[in-house]
Amino acid sequence: MSDARYQMFEEIQRERGINVEEAKQMLKKLAVETPSWGYGDSGTRFKVFQKEGVPRNPFEKFEDAAQVQKYTGASPSVAIHIPWDKVEDYSQLRQHAESLGLKVGAVNPNLFQEPEYMLGSITNSNKKVRRKAIDHLLECVDIAKEVGSEIISLWLADGTNYPGQADIRKRKNWMEEALRETYDKLDDHMRLLIEYKFFEPAFYHTDLADWGMAYNTAMKLGPKAEVLVDLGHHPQGTNVEHIVAYLLDEKRLGGFHFNARKYADDDLIAATTNPYELFLIFSQILSALRDEDHPEVQKTARRISYMIDQSHNIEPKIPAMIRSILNIQTYYAKALLINWDELVKAQGEQDVLRAENIVREAFEQDVTPLLNAVREEMNVPQDPIKAFLESGYLEKIRVRGIGGASW
Amino acid sequence: MSDARYQMFEEIQRERGINVEEAKQMLKKLAVETPSWGYGDSGTRFKVFQKEGVPRNPFEKFEDAAQVQKYTGASPSVAIHIPWDKVEDYSQLRQHAESLGLKVGAVNPNLFQEPEYMLGSITNSNKKVRRKAIDHLLECVDIAKEVGSEIISLWLADGTNYPGQADIRKRKNWMEEALRETYDKLDDHMRLLIEYKFFEPAFYHTDLADWGMAYNTAMKLGPKAEVLVDLGHHPQGTNVEHIVAYLLDEKRLGGFHFNARKYADDDLIAATTNPYELFLIFSQILSALRDEDHPEVQKTARRISYMIDQSHNIEPKIPAMIRSILNIQTYYAKALLINWDELVKAQGEQDVLRAENIVREAFEQDVTPLLNAVREEMNVPQDPIKAFLESGYLEKIRVRGIGGASW
Amino acid sequence: MSDARYQMFEEIQRERGINVEEAKQMLKKLAVETPSWGYGDSGTRFKVFQKEGVPRNPFEKFEDAAQVQKYTGASPSVAIHIPWDKVEDYSQLRQHAESLGLKVGAVNPNLFQEPEYMLGSITNSNKKVRRKAIDHLLECVDIAKEVGSEIISLWLADGTNYPGQADIRKRKNWMEEALRETYDKLDDHMRLLIEYKFFEPAFYHTDLADWGMAYNTAMKLGPKAEVLVDLGHHPQGTNVEHIVAYLLDEKRLGGFHFNARKYADDDLIAATTNPYELFLIFSQILSALRDEDHPEVQKTARRISYMIDQSHNIEPKIPAMIRSILNIQTYYAKALLINWDELVKAQGEQDVLRAENIVREAFEQDVTPLLNAVREEMNVPQDPIKAFLESGYLEKIRVRGIGGASW
Amino acid sequence: MSDARYQMFEEIQRERGINVEEAKQMLKKLAVETPSWGYGDSGTRFKVFQKEGVPRNPFEKFEDAAQVQKYTGASPSVAIHIPWDKVEDYSQLRQHAESLGLKVGAVNPNLFQEPEYMLGSITNSNKKVRRKAIDHLLECVDIAKEVGSEIISLWLADGTNYPGQADIRKRKNWMEEALRETYDKLDDHMRLLIEYKFFEPAFYHTDLADWGMAYNTAMKLGPKAEVLVDLGHHPQGTNVEHIVAYLLDEKRLGGFHFNARKYADDDLIAATTNPYELFLIFSQILSALRDEDHPEVQKTARRISYMIDQSHNIEPKIPAMIRSILNIQTYYAKALLINWDELVKAQGEQDVLRAENIVREAFEQDVTPLLNAVREEMNVPQDPIKAFLESGYLEKIRVRGIGGASW
Repeated sequence: MSDARYQMFEEIQRERGINVEEAKQMLKKLAVETPSWGYGDSGTRFKVFQKEGVPRNPFEKFEDAAQVQKYTGASPSVAIHIPWDKVEDYSQLRQHAESLGLKVGAVNPNLFQEPEYMLGSITNSNKKVRRKAIDHLLECVDIAKEVGSEIISLWLADGTNYPGQADIRKRKNWMEEALRETYDKLDDHMRLLIEYKFFEPAFYHTDLADWGMAYNTAMKLGPKAEVLVDLGHHPQGTNVEHIVAYLLDEKRLGGFHFNARKYADDDLIAATTNPYELFLIFSQILSALRDEDHPEVQKTARRISYMIDQSHNIEPKIPAMIRSILNIQTYYAKALLINWDELVKAQGEQDVLRAENIVREAFEQDVTPLLNAVREEMNVPQDPIKAFLESGYLEKIRVRGIGGASW
Repeated sequence: MSDARYQMFEEIQRERGINVEEAKQMLKKLAVETPSWGYGDSGTRFKVFQKEGVPRNPFEKFEDAAQVQKYTGASPSVAIHIPWDKVEDYSQLRQHAESLGLKVGAVNPNLFQEPEYMLGSITNSNKKVRRKAIDHLLECVDIAKEVGSEIISLWLADGTNYPGQADIRKRKNWMEEALRETYDKLDDHMRLLIEYKFFEPAFYHTDLADWGMAYNTAMKLGPKAEVLVDLGHHPQGTNVEHIVAYLLDEKRLGGFHFNARKYADDDLIAATTNPYELFLIFSQILSALRDEDHPEVQKTARRISYMIDQSHNIEPKIPAMIRSILNIQTYYAKALLINWDELVKAQGEQDVLRAENIVREAFEQDVTPLLNAVREEMNVPQDPIKAFLESGYLEKIRVRGIGGASW
Repeated sequence: MSDARYQMFEEIQRERGINVEEAKQMLKKLAVETPSWGYGDSGTRFKVFQKEGVPRNPFEKFEDAAQVQKYTGASPSVAIHIPWDKVEDYSQLRQHAESLGLKVGAVNPNLFQEPEYMLGSITNSNKKVRRKAIDHLLECVDIAKEVGSEIISLWLADGTNYPGQADIRKRKNWMEEALRETYDKLDDHMRLLIEYKFFEPAFYHTDLADWGMAYNTAMKLGPKAEVLVDLGHHPQGTNVEHIVAYLLDEKRLGGFHFNARKYADDDLIAATTNPYELFLIFSQILSALRDEDHPEVQKTARRISYMIDQSHNIEPKIPAMIRSILNIQTYYAKALLINWDELVKAQGEQDVLRAENIVREAFEQDVTPLLNAVREEMNVPQDPIKAFLESGYLEKIRVRGIGGASW
Repeated sequence: MSDARYQMFEEIQRERGINVEEAKQMLKKLAVETPSWGYGDSGTRFKVFQKEGVPRNPFEKFEDAAQVQKYTGASPSVAIHIPWDKVEDYSQLRQHAESLGLKVGAVNPNLFQEPEYMLGSITNSNKKVRRKAIDHLLECVDIAKEVGSEIISLWLADGTNYPGQADIRKRKNWMEEALRETYDKLDDHMRLLIEYKFFEPAFYHTDLADWGMAYNTAMKLGPKAEVLVDLGHHPQGTNVEHIVAYLLDEKRLGGFHFNARKYADDDLIAATTNPYELFLIFSQILSALRDEDHPEVQKTARRISYMIDQSHNIEPKIPAMIRSILNIQTYYAKALLINWDELVKAQGEQDVLRAENIVREAFEQDVTPLLNAVREEMNVPQDPIKAFLESGYLEKIRVRGIGGASW
């Protein structure tokens, strides 16, 4: 039966002018990093609901992440966060990861939880605080080298709550100084991904508030600095795929933090509030990948780091992470079914209705047979969540008790 | 000098057609409740910055609140929150309050911090959880009677994070049942204030999402139920003063939670991001107060409960609360300087430019002399923050140490 | 081949627990009204781009609408707008419609294009202007009776641009008076649908700004008054399906104006910016339709009026309208594939991840075979747009020239 | 009396540490350009309300603008818009302006009203359309040279309404090519101001959507290209003063389009919805002006072009423009009363409450005596609107009739 469905799918796509084999190859290469903090307890400012069995240390976080990789085959690396994942011996953490078939992914400095950072870290008017924050950034570069990671992923929580609270331009200059020092410590093959966020935890101004500020900072630093787009960090209504296309064209799109949000949160499971947006983002990336007239754009698109940045407050941690990977695969798979030749033709003919429909038609395809086929070829279960739930892992980790690591 | 300034102020206002004496009387009557939780530690989901000297128990919170009353004379009551302010003997708490010259204000049930409430309290699909939540509401009515409070102030944090997560209409009906039971327990002179919030901590849907839902619920319950407007709980762009006018006209505006926000927070000090909005809200209330054609509207406007609902994450707690009171007085004072006869005339002549300007002209008045005069007559310091900072109170409470109560 | 696809579809749905035959019956009954103004020229405040062949009068608008019905079979009625569709003899218009196989749908009064309405129509402080506006409303009730329409669909463009410009509460009362007079003229089988809009063309306050105001007005008027939800008239982030569920539960959801928007427009083709939202709205309606415990809710859901309210500025008019119908059918069809029993079970077990997925899984189905089967049974083409484009109609109407009717 | 008020004002400011004389000098130098299109009829997409006496041609627009200058002394130049202000002989227009004591200000190309521009002008996939649009840009540079203007002020209305409608990156490149050609034609002393807009008239994506895109384009073009900030063109919640500070620090802030908006309009009178925002923007500019450590930042701040971009739909045109000038002066005057030394001190001590208050305290000053003194010294009336209304000008222009120029 499953075969019949796949054959039907292939036939439909062939009629639509789509090369399914190519789509399968692309899908197999899609790797999405999960964050170590996504396996611990989390919550809102009102309440952190503690779960049974959450990991008690960085090593257990990697064990949980290994389950996501085991059942999806699409999540071979894990982002770490310092100091949440601080260990005495990073080579041990690296070995632990590798023994689980994982790599240590992006290293995320934490510039928001020290008491001194209340009014800013690298933008604090107090030089000592800035020094402490820069030292932490440099420490993270060292850790990245130790764990074999090529990426420093920087979210700067700095900002102010009130007009007048601080000198915005001075803070900008302090920030640039700090990032310059950090940048200069990177090895040549390393990258500094600069995130931006419209607001929160600061509520009047955020020092890196939008893609323009992150991009401009990256441009000043040099080619190893790129922009990281977190899907939940924009004003309402923002056309995120436009920003993606723009950054690709400027060869400065470094990575993504996937998640979803309807209002102002950034921790919902990717694609649960507006799946079409994720699909359209992938469409822009695929358009760049096939743009042979611009090899530098292609190159940028090829090395994008895909990362999940979610902290599931009400969902079971590991299944929520698996679901996130599956969703990302689903909407990537759909974007792979766009008939680009037809689209270019309709655009050339300025046929608005047809061009719109060509894109949305791909979104309407049921990609279950395609994903099943890919999973079969990758030797992972057809229904990864079901397989995980039946594996007994959740029962096994109950021994960890309640009150494990939280971020 | 101060006298000269006041005389000049009075002369200017007399020329503008304003009765300053009346404004002074109105100002003296303005009472704004502060929340007990505003004196404890608070923060964002990323970090609670602990402060030295925060109160260790409900009694100390009242002592801090008494300072605000001492230096402003405009804050004679304190809202409590159960179970944060749970004590063995509420008559003792009441006596403590009274001994400090304070009254216990609105009683706020907490329906969001029990582990069982993760997926809802009075809207939870589990009947036992709903029962527990209703019992808590009933307990709060009892507490209100014990402490001599007339107000139950309900913020319902219930909601869902994902489409499909729950049956929205069933939850609505469970909510109405729970509030019916609570309402029926109120004494005749008591009121149930129903708050609404656009989102957070739920991120897909909030069971009481907007004023329309709060209002409709109040209408179904009966005349003792009214709507509470929290300034920070609306979608971007919302005309809050329009909602205020609308609810006044329907005689269902029960109270306010004052605060400010630029994006999605609701804890910034009132009037720090858009002071004109607070002024315009007061303008609608003053318009209602003087509407002799509609005595029921006047009556509603007269008994509005003004409450602050802020948790200052980066500011010193007591000074921030004093500043909030001062700001509210300032923008209320300005609204008192609108020349209503001129405004009605300009509106009648459909002179858009003049009408707009009449309102904003009042906003442009410097009300310092007026507020100073009022403070003098009320026997409180001209500069309440300075007086408080010089009083030595902050030094005195240092003994409390770090790690007091947090919400 | 088509048969094989349908069989495969049916098999997949059977496995999922879905009764396809029932879905087909539901789909056949879906009727979506198109607006006469959607066939004429339209634009933004910056430019109206004139198209060749747009209708020159109400009769030609019905002829164009008949094409939409001919090729979709799902659009049997046409909303009219007075005075845009003013004719000397409305019985003639009705006969013309019927001769084309159409019915005259909702009658839409225009309260925004007379010079006198610059500062308000039924809320104008000038009594003569209010009288003129009310008379227009009453005239529209008469027209509705003449053309055999049961629906008056009211969008009130009234509002103000500046604080102070007008007395908000007085305007509210004038509005209620005007609608009372209109309501009282309705025959028993008629309905007054009250629309709301967050802003535009007024930019400070809109007299009917949100669902709460429209609902409260309907409640005061009586059972023949209901709320109309226009998908493009909400603040950013609003959970429209929540409002839909709420109004259904209160038995006051009267109808929809379908369209799409990303920012603040309300004229984009339905489902082109966030198709999941339209699907979720239909989900709430289907949930109500099968709610046998609440027959009044079911009854409300059954008689909802589905209407398109779009003015296509850059697209060819008739194809854009056909596409809109197709999109609405597509996302309705997907909502019909939700497995409600499974959903209720997952909700009961508080399995957030599963419940979310059950809903989105239906959205992921490819409904092409279903829609093709329905179209076959309805004797309309499989590809309505292609069939229309090949029909020669567009060539035929070129004779109308440029400069036809615009709204 | 007026003298007494001014003396009191000066005394208060002296006590506050403010040099009033300096503030007066700054105020006298403030020049705000008005737009020619602001004197003609305008409206929303729903209705253009025609006014009596609006100018019938560019010459009459300058005559009206001369009234604004006559009564305010602060509006010595007028922006023109091509082709709305197309004349046969631009030297004649220039002479007419000069004879009225005016200069021709920024030249604004129109890239949105030709039928060919429906799907884009300089980003249109049709090369001929792009050529036509570029030629128009070049023509505008020529016109600027003829009329003696140094500024080309570019608002690009280009964008798309639907996903897939066009290739976003191709459009970006076409845009850059067109602006390169335009830029290269500028004389050395000329500037190209690049505006951005979040949305409208395009509703899916705008080719220059935010400050980041405008800034990046300016950076690529060269030092004669700068960013223009229109206050009404941002997502809700955007911290505009942050963008202003950022662009100042990068020496790329070229000018402003002043106006106000609460939702998505950009034509309301400046400072009528949130006057504090305008004040905070001026605060950032004043901070830059006095930043002696960064002379290039100072230089940028000194040459900012202040322009109004409003089209008053319901207000009388000339009085609305005078009111706009007065408002801008008012909030600029308030920003001049910030005690910078105190602010820097409070910021340095990280005293959040004090720093916030120092800024808002300046906002609370009543600047009427200051503005009156300045007007006296500038030989313009104390109450410019009253003086204008009494001048008989409005009666005089009634002869123009109804149906003059509209934009």
